[in-house]
Amino acid sequence: MKKYLAEMVGTMVLVLMGCGVAVSLGCDPVNNIPAVVGTAFAFGLSVVAMAYTIGGISGCHINPAITLGCFLSGRISGKDCGMYMLFQVIGAFIGSLLLYILTENVPGLEGTGANDLQANVSVLGGLLAEIIFTCVFVLVVLGATAKTNGATNNFAGLAIGLSLILVHLVCIRYTGTSVNPARSIAPAIFEGGTALSNLWIFIVGPFVGGACAAGIWKLIDSDK
Amino acid sequence: MKKYLAEMVGTMVLVLMGCGVAVSLGCDPVNNIPAVVGTAFAFGLSVVAMAYTIGGISGCHINPAITLGCFLSGRISGKDCGMYMLFQVIGAFIGSLLLYILTENVPGLEGTGANDLQANVSVLGGLLAEIIFTCVFVLVVLGATAKTNGATNNFAGLAIGLSLILVHLVCIRYTGTSVNPARSIAPAIFEGGTALSNLWIFIVGPFVGGACAAGIWKLIDSDK
Amino acid sequence: MKKYLAEMVGTMVLVLMGCGVAVSLGCDPVNNIPAVVGTAFAFGLSVVAMAYTIGGISGCHINPAITLGCFLSGRISGKDCGMYMLFQVIGAFIGSLLLYILTENVPGLEGTGANDLQANVSVLGGLLAEIIFTCVFVLVVLGATAKTNGATNNFAGLAIGLSLILVHLVCIRYTGTSVNPARSIAPAIFEGGTALSNLWIFIVGPFVGGACAAGIWKLIDSDK
Amino acid sequence: MKKYLAEMVGTMVLVLMGCGVAVSLGCDPVNNIPAVVGTAFAFGLSVVAMAYTIGGISGCHINPAITLGCFLSGRISGKDCGMYMLFQVIGAFIGSLLLYILTENVPGLEGTGANDLQANVSVLGGLLAEIIFTCVFVLVVLGATAKTNGATNNFAGLAIGLSLILVHLVCIRYTGTSVNPARSIAPAIFEGGTALSNLWIFIVGPFVGGACAAGIWKLIDSDK
Repeated sequence: MKKYLAEMVGTMVLVLMGCGVAVSLGCDPVNNIPAVVGTAFAFGLSVVAMAYTIGGISGCHINPAITLGCFLSGRISGKDCGMYMLFQVIGAFIGSLLLYILTENVPGLEGTGANDLQANVSVLGGLLAEIIFTCVFVLVVLGATAKTNGATNNFAGLAIGLSLILVHLVCIRYTGTSVNPARSIAPAIFEGGTALSNLWIFIVGPFVGGACAAGIWKLIDSDK
Repeated sequence: MKKYLAEMVGTMVLVLMGCGVAVSLGCDPVNNIPAVVGTAFAFGLSVVAMAYTIGGISGCHINPAITLGCFLSGRISGKDCGMYMLFQVIGAFIGSLLLYILTENVPGLEGTGANDLQANVSVLGGLLAEIIFTCVFVLVVLGATAKTNGATNNFAGLAIGLSLILVHLVCIRYTGTSVNPARSIAPAIFEGGTALSNLWIFIVGPFVGGACAAGIWKLIDSDK
Repeated sequence: MKKYLAEMVGTMVLVLMGCGVAVSLGCDPVNNIPAVVGTAFAFGLSVVAMAYTIGGISGCHINPAITLGCFLSGRISGKDCGMYMLFQVIGAFIGSLLLYILTENVPGLEGTGANDLQANVSVLGGLLAEIIFTCVFVLVVLGATAKTNGATNNFAGLAIGLSLILVHLVCIRYTGTSVNPARSIAPAIFEGGTALSNLWIFIVGPFVGGACAAGIWKLIDSDK
Repeated sequence: MKKYLAEMVGTMVLVLMGCGVAVSLGCDPVNNIPAVVGTAFAFGLSVVAMAYTIGGISGCHINPAITLGCFLSGRISGKDCGMYMLFQVIGAFIGSLLLYILTENVPGLEGTGANDLQANVSVLGGLLAEIIFTCVFVLVVLGATAKTNGATNNFAGLAIGLSLILVHLVCIRYTGTSVNPARSIAPAIFEGGTALSNLWIFIVGPFVGGACAAGIWKLIDSDK
């Protein structure tokens, strides 16, 4: 049970802090590049922070796409896979709720950082971006925590977090960057509108990308 | 005694460098996002620097909210708790004094980086922000230094410092970010005005947040 | 074979993410410094991410100039040298192709991040920049992975990635920064024009720089 | 002899890359904060890069103020102290020369990044800034490499480099940031003018600051 609670707290922190910085800095991929850089660091550093906080308890997935990739790679059971995802979504809702409470009475701070298609990006373009960049991200997760890289495994939390900075730097311009269904579901329900009608992109895309990563890792892992 | 002196020096460095960068870059959460990003890095890197400098001597709390969280988690004695806080506040005053000496004769550099409510943020909003973000920060401190994460404990200083960058990225927009009573007391006394009349927010908020973190960690720590 | 595939995947990620961020942020060394900083982080963090993902499989060169430096330092065989370079170039093409697919239908996102001479930089100036900065970069690679620094070798991936951030911060102003022939070949063929006619600079420069680094390292390595 | 050559190469890289980024980005503490942030990272990451490259050979001082602090703390001999400083200055000249060659034919890139008093900063103000911030920096160096922090010593290179980012973020506004006589001497001679007439500030200040750090460390080091 402790590990499910840890996943809930970790995902809460990711959503509260990552989306919270996007709102605080006024993240806008066309007109505010410093805010894009700051927001990218926020999501990545949330993962670094949680990796060294709850890593010893649950492994710190805090992302259903990672949990799927780990399940497909035979690292966790089906039951844990389902329970992790459930508690991740619950944690994300708590994170979004806290952010909503913080921002609702501050004119100038709007929304809860929901994902949506950015300027001139089509549905297909957004879906492709989520698949490709989630695949890169989950590949790093699977590699950095594999036996193949055993000697450097204490670095996994750092490497994974820094790679999430990277993913956000490139992907905010397309979709604001989900690569994590739990991170997208809660803000979409708080905000409604196209964030909600496009929500399927941020569920399907990351799951497909995570599954691709499991396949690619199987191909290159020299431990097999 | 060495460990108390170390806490004094560490807190002095945190206040001198963190607040010093806020002043040097002209940190403004509405109009100068690059300065917000730079200031966030400054506070976090101050903690990284001090963690690997005085960590072996005092554990590098340099923050009364962390000291409270450690006390409530049974990691330090009541006497050390009080002495740490005392020397942290003394160190913060020395840091503020050095910054005051550096800036007072440079037109264009103003103040000592005191915390205060930012544009459109209410007293309740500021207090909530300090409670919530201190809770996240102290949770990382308690987790990263716990036995549960023993194998990665050398990374604690890095993870904690990087998480303080994260906390500043989101919280500067609300209060300039205290999450540390010692960091707020000294500049408020140097600057007076609303920084002083609102000072209680930056003492009560971080202490409540630190206590919440101790409770949450007790819930999820699988070592118990 | 696994290690060649790993080099292919790693170089694909480097080109997709590094060049992808340059395009997403609108990297411009004269008018958009925040985008330069973000792009520099992207290339460096791509190396960090891949180092801890494929480092245990192939050593994570993902750069023909590094592979040359390792060959000249007697660390890999001639066959591996050739195969690594081949698979690096193939990976780079896949990365560029993915980026081309992502950007071609998004008005406002242009190109695939090809290297070229920047404002007021001559052919000789660009060639010198590529030689000098590749030399610095490959020197870090050779040093950080040497027996001389054995105790800190787990840090090599981090140190090398961070040094690539550094190299991009200085060199984007001259050539956009290649220091890696594979990273330059693919986008130049996609884009044509001067990017293609100047491509030789980004092949000759990095190879000469990598060879210089092997020489300098031989001079200072105290293990010899 | 290898260790002296290593100090020469390391200081060359620090000056070439740190000052080179200042020139490439157009570092200006009043009007270009993103360039200040990028320049701060450049100096710090140069130290990280060199720490894991030549750390096993010479300890990677690449700064006469650090060498003085180590000498006063009884960690190196008088002969090594003198030779390190000599080779550091030679390396700095080579670094400045390379940068001069790179920039002299590129209109828009000016100078070699010499230190000088910034807007509204007096001689006394600049001297105080150099003393105080060098003291903080050298304190981190002495602490992070001390037996007291033995278990985390592999992190020293990272912690020291990150603390140099911090020092630049605050100090660029006062003097451009020397905290390293070797880094200041070479560019001052290339540029002349007030950079040369004020050069003494960047020799006296860092040496005084480094000596202060040795004293403070002796006070708090619990290993004594």
